[in-house]
Amino acid sequence: MSYLIQNALIPTEQGYETVDVQIEADRIAAIGSELPINKGQPNTVIDAQNKLLLPGFVNAHTHSSEMWQRGLIPPLPLELWLTDLYDFALTPEQVYLSALGTAVETLLTGGTSVVDHLVPIPGREAETIAAAVRAYREVGIRAFLAPLIQDEPFAAGLPQRGTSGTAFKTDAPTTEAVLALVQDAIEQFHQPDDRISILVAPTGIQLCSDVLFEGCIELSDRHNLCRHAHLLETKVQKMLAQEKYGGSAVTHLKQLGYLGPRTSLAHCVWLNEADIEILATTQSTVVHNPLSNLRLGSGIAPLLKYRKAGVNVTFGCDGSASNDSQDLLEAIKIGSILHNLTDSDYNAWITPREAIEMASLGGARGLNAADQFGSLTVGKKADLALYDLTNFSLLPCTDPIGLLVLGRPAQAVHSVWVDGQQIVSAGQVTSIDVSQLKQEIFERSQWRAGYSSLTRVALEARYREIMGLSPISPDQQSS
Amino acid sequence: MSYLIQNALIPTEQGYETVDVQIEADRIAAIGSELPINKGQPNTVIDAQNKLLLPGFVNAHTHSSEMWQRGLIPPLPLELWLTDLYDFALTPEQVYLSALGTAVETLLTGGTSVVDHLVPIPGREAETIAAAVRAYREVGIRAFLAPLIQDEPFAAGLPQRGTSGTAFKTDAPTTEAVLALVQDAIEQFHQPDDRISILVAPTGIQLCSDVLFEGCIELSDRHNLCRHAHLLETKVQKMLAQEKYGGSAVTHLKQLGYLGPRTSLAHCVWLNEADIEILATTQSTVVHNPLSNLRLGSGIAPLLKYRKAGVNVTFGCDGSASNDSQDLLEAIKIGSILHNLTDSDYNAWITPREAIEMASLGGARGLNAADQFGSLTVGKKADLALYDLTNFSLLPCTDPIGLLVLGRPAQAVHSVWVDGQQIVSAGQVTSIDVSQLKQEIFERSQWRAGYSSLTRVALEARYREIMGLSPISPDQQSS
Repeated sequence: MSYLIQNALIPTEQGYETVDVQIEADRIAAIGSELPINKGQPNTVIDAQNKLLLPGFVNAHTHSSEMWQRGLIPPLPLELWLTDLYDFALTPEQVYLSALGTAVETLLTGGTSVVDHLVPIPGREAETIAAAVRAYREVGIRAFLAPLIQDEPFAAGLPQRGTSGTAFKTDAPTTEAVLALVQDAIEQFHQPDDRISILVAPTGIQLCSDVLFEGCIELSDRHNLCRHAHLLETKVQKMLAQEKYGGSAVTHLKQLGYLGPRTSLAHCVWLNEADIEILATTQSTVVHNPLSNLRLGSGIAPLLKYRKAGVNVTFGCDGSASNDSQDLLEAIKIGSILHNLTDSDYNAWITPREAIEMASLGGARGLNAADQFGSLTVGKKADLALYDLTNFSLLPCTDPIGLLVLGRPAQAVHSVWVDGQQIVSAGQVTSIDVSQLKQEIFERSQWRAGYSSLTRVALEARYREIMGLSPISPDQQSS
Repeated sequence: MSYLIQNALIPTEQGYETVDVQIEADRIAAIGSELPINKGQPNTVIDAQNKLLLPGFVNAHTHSSEMWQRGLIPPLPLELWLTDLYDFALTPEQVYLSALGTAVETLLTGGTSVVDHLVPIPGREAETIAAAVRAYREVGIRAFLAPLIQDEPFAAGLPQRGTSGTAFKTDAPTTEAVLALVQDAIEQFHQPDDRISILVAPTGIQLCSDVLFEGCIELSDRHNLCRHAHLLETKVQKMLAQEKYGGSAVTHLKQLGYLGPRTSLAHCVWLNEADIEILATTQSTVVHNPLSNLRLGSGIAPLLKYRKAGVNVTFGCDGSASNDSQDLLEAIKIGSILHNLTDSDYNAWITPREAIEMASLGGARGLNAADQFGSLTVGKKADLALYDLTNFSLLPCTDPIGLLVLGRPAQAVHSVWVDGQQIVSAGQVTSIDVSQLKQEIFERSQWRAGYSSLTRVALEARYREIMGLSPISPDQQSS
C-alpha cells in the first residue's frame, strides 16, 4: 500500500513549510512540493491541508496491564503504592485487553511505538507475554515488549535498616527461570521487522541480583536486544543502593556492563552529578515519566542537567495506575514545563520543538533505532502522526508545535501510520474495533471507592520508619 | 424548565450511590431515589445511567483574551513573557470570540463558573468589557468579570535596583479613570441573579497604587462585590514588594484592608509562613494556577501549607497564553499531584475527592457564594456537570473520581447545567454554534513560528541583572 499525503505542514529548522509526503511500503519514499500521484499503482491520497505532520512519538516506558487499576490507588509513594498494585490478580485475557487499550491511547496522542515493561502474571508468565504480543500485532503499533523480571522477593526492595533479614526469605522466582522466560520470548516473538521487539528488562537494582543483570547482558549481546530497567525512581531506592552496593547504583550498573547506547532507564530521579556523567559517557537514555513522578511524589528528575551533559532523554507515560492515562502529549507537556522550576535561566528551558524531538528521535535513539525512525527523513520507516489543526483545542492558528506541546490537545490526532500502514484515520483507530474493546473493558470492571491492601497496612509502619516519618496511630492509617 | 436526572452516580462520604436529581427553575429541588416524574409540567428526563454527577467547578482565574496568543510565546519567565503578550493589539470582536472559546473549554471540562481577569484594550476599555459580557450571556456560563486595572506603567513592575526612576515616567492610566471604568461596568453589567457579576480586580501590588486598592475596596463595599488580584506570582514581585513597601506584600494588603472572605488571590507562590497565617485569619482564598506556574517557571505554590493553615484553595487555568488551555480537569490534576513533591508525608497529599471539593465548593467560597453553589445540595443553584463513565478515557470502571482527577479525561463531559439551564448536552455546547465559532477563530488567525517582541529584547538585559543571571551575548538572546 502507498500513500500520498498532500499539503501537510511540517516543521523546518526555523519555521514551517507545506509539503507532500509519499509513503511506499514501510518507508518514507519522498518529501517535496507537488509530488506526482503515482497513477499506475494503488496510492491513497490523503488531504493534509490544515494538518501538521510529525514523526511518531515513542511511549518509552509503560506497564500496560496497570490500566486495570487506573484511578483506583490513592496518592501514595511508590513503595506503598506497589503493595496495592500487586494485590490484584489479572488474567491473560485482561492483559490482552489492556495492551489494546494502551496501544489505542498511545496512538491517539501521537505515539507510534510503545515500550511495555510488562509484568508477567505469576505462574502464567509465557501466556502474559503472548497475550500482549497478540494485542500489539492486532493494533499494528510498533511494540517493544520488555518482560519485567526480578529474582529477589518484594521485601528486598526496602533498606533493611537494622531489621532482621527474614524479609529475604519469602519466595521469589529463580534467576534461571526468569532468564528462560525471556529466552523463550525472544525465540517466539522477537521480530523487529514485523514491529515486535523483545527487550531485556530487569525491574531494577532494587529486586535484581547481579547474576540476573549479567544474564540479561548476555541475552542482549547474543540477540542484539535493547536493554531497559527502572533506575533510582525514589529516595528509598537510592538508600537501598548504598546499602546493597556500598555506593552508587549507576556506578554498579556501569561496572556490570549494563549501560550503553542500547540501554534506556526509566525515571532516573535520584542521580548525582557523577551518575549523570556516567549516563552521558555510556550513551544511555533516560526515560522521563513526569506524571508518575508527581503522582507518587518521587521527585523531579534533573532533566536540564541531563540535557546539558548530553544525555539522551525521552518521555514515557508509565503505567496507568501511576499516571493514570496513556496520553503522550500530556507527558511531553508536563515533562517539559516542570523543569522550568529547576533553573532560573530560561535559556536552558525545553522549547516545544525540543520536546517534540525528544519524544520522537530521542525515543528512537533510546531503542537504538535512530537510523530507522523518529524523524521525517526519506528512507526512514513511515511512523507518522497527522494532527488536525482545525481542532478547537489547537485554535487559534498560532505556532502549531507550541499549541501541541503547551496546549491541551483533545482528540487532535487525525491519522497515524506505523511501518507505512495507516492504523488511525479521521481520529479513529481502524485496525481494531474500539467500541467492542470499550464494551469488554466496561463489562470486566466495576466501580468502587478507593483501595487499600492488607499488604500496605502491614508495610506502612516500616516505610514510615525508613523515611523518618512520624509513626501514625491506627485510625490515621492511609486508606 | 425542569429536569429529572435519573440514576446518576454521586459521591457519598465514603463511596458512591445512585440517585435521581430534580432541577426546578435555577435550583436543585430534590435528590433521592426513584423521584417521581412530574407529569403535569414540562420536565425533561435525563438518563444518567453510568454517569457521574458533580457540582460544577470554578475556573477561578483566567484572562480570556489571551486565547489569541496561545501556543505562541516561547518558554519565558513572567516578566519577559508579558512583554510579548502586550505586544499584540486585539479588537473587541476578538475579545468576544475568545470569551466564547474560554467559556466553551471551561464547560467541556466540568466548569460552570469562570472568573475572567479581563485585560481591557487600551482606549476601548468599556467595549472590551461589553464584548466579554455579551459572550458569557450567549453561552450561559456563570461569569465573574474582573476588569484588570492598574495605574502604574509596565516598567514599574520591576525592582529598580539602582537604575534611574525614568521607567515610571511612561504613560499609565490615571487612578480615577480605571476606577470609573469599574464603576461603569458595575452599573451596566453587575447582575448576579442573571449570572454576570463584576469583581474589583487590580492586577496586583506590582502595578497598582495604594489609592487604587483603596478605591477598589470602597467600590467593593458599596456594591457588595468580590475582590480579586494577582499576588506574589514570581520572585521578582517579592523583591519588588520589599522595595516598594519595605516588607511583605501580604502585610501591606492586610493593612490596606483588601483581604477578607470576599477576596481571591491568584498564584500566591512566594508567601512565607507569616503571610500564610494572614490569609488564614482574613479568610482570603488562594487560586492555584499550576500550569502557568510551571510554564513561566514561577515556582510551586505552598498548597499543602495553605491547607494545613486552613486557607481556602481553589484552581484556575490562568490565561491561555501561559498554560495554554482552559482545561480545568488538567489544572485540578496537576494542581493536586504537583504538591506530592513538597511533603514526604503522603498523608498530607491532596486526594482526588479533596481536589474535586476544592474546585467546586472551594471555588464558590472564593466568590463568597458557598451558600449559593458548589455542592450537590437541595436548594442550591443547579450548577452541575454530568460525566460519561463509559468514555474510553474513564475506563475501566474503578473509582470514578480517581479516574476523573488522576486520569486524563478526554471529552468526558456529557451534560452541563448552569443556573438550572442545560447548556451542554451529549458532549456539545448547545447554547451557541461552536462550529461557527471555530470557523471565525480560524479565519482570524494564521500560523507562524514562535514570537519575540522588541520590548522583550529591550528588557532582557535588565531582567537578567535583576535575577542575577549571567549576561548574554546578542546571538544568545532568546527568541
